[in-house]
Amino acid sequence: MLGSWLGLQFPTGYEVGRECILSHESEFTATGIWQLTSRPSYEEFRDDDRLYLDDLQIGQRFTSGTHVVDEEQIKAFARQFDPQPFHLDNEAAKNTLLSGLAASGWHTAAITMRLLVESGMPLAGGIVGAGGELDWPNPTRPGDSLQVESEVLDIRPSRSRPDRGVAVVRSLTRNQRNEVVQCLTAKLIVPRRV
Amino acid sequence: MLGSWLGLQFPTGYEVGRECILSHESEFTATGIWQLTSRPSYEEFRDDDRLYLDDLQIGQRFTSGTHVVDEEQIKAFARQFDPQPFHLDNEAAKNTLLSGLAASGWHTAAITMRLLVESGMPLAGGIVGAGGELDWPNPTRPGDSLQVESEVLDIRPSRSRPDRGVAVVRSLTRNQRNEVVQCLTAKLIVPRRV
Repeated sequence: MLGSWLGLQFPTGYEVGRECILSHESEFTATGIWQLTSRPSYEEFRDDDRLYLDDLQIGQRFTSGTHVVDEEQIKAFARQFDPQPFHLDNEAAKNTLLSGLAASGWHTAAITMRLLVESGMPLAGGIVGAGGELDWPNPTRPGDSLQVESEVLDIRPSRSRPDRGVAVVRSLTRNQRNEVVQCLTAKLIVPRRV
Repeated sequence: MLGSWLGLQFPTGYEVGRECILSHESEFTATGIWQLTSRPSYEEFRDDDRLYLDDLQIGQRFTSGTHVVDEEQIKAFARQFDPQPFHLDNEAAKNTLLSGLAASGWHTAAITMRLLVESGMPLAGGIVGAGGELDWPNPTRPGDSLQVESEVLDIRPSRSRPDRGVAVVRSLTRNQRNEVVQCLTAKLIVPRRV
């Protein structure tokens, strides 16, 4: 069960990872026109290939390249932004809620963003988020290889600005064991073709 | 209006920053027992002073120290985790949705975490989040001085694990003009006194 690593079953409304799935999760096939595999790079795309809001479809999927997180990266991020024993000290981490060294959730989020920007979703105007929902159903451990799969959940042209709109996109970050370490449902600001 | 910097008014359900307020926002007074001002440090607290779930009260507030974000920090974070023109290049940023250089939202989140860990909320067991909701109603700009004010919204002992529970905490990160640059409503895992 998602969230069980924290030893918690939450009352209704606070269940961790409750909506951390993509549609047709069991099929694991791309429904969109962009299915990027291996280690793609945006250098392959000309600007004309970038997607505007008008090009997106609900259910469309994107898969990023991968990034391997090592112990030094985990500790370097933690020293700067999240200096707590379970992110800094292998021995001290053993007796904490995380039961061993794990990356800061914000580090997992930052790596996810790097994967999205580099290879996760070729949006015109880049990846600009106004916010979203975030869950960390499993910890990121040293040696984990992370990959992000994203799905377009909703598309909302702006009422006030005809040149842009919001795409609601769910991005699942998985490790090499296919466990979800982060579920992000983001509101992205995407330009329209005008 | 919150969110107006993106030039968007969202249909119901996607309004940015809609719940980015603390209770009794206009009063701006601490209702909790911990009102930390100036630049506090946890070195002042003995372990015995740390708060367990049983010590928290709904409505309780905490105020962190401050952190000044400069241009070099913004670009260094972006080079590593969010390499897009509006976080890296002052000139190129002018013609983007962000209308000038701004920090990655994930950088604002990471700085917020540092402030919470160092001086924002003296929780027993540290600050361990299982996820939450995140909004960036205004961009973080070079020179901004950030401070985090947090309020306990809900307290839920775990059904399955009597030694812990969840505190739902809203943390608003404000700049020196009192604008909210991030609204985080987090589910924190907090130990109980056993």
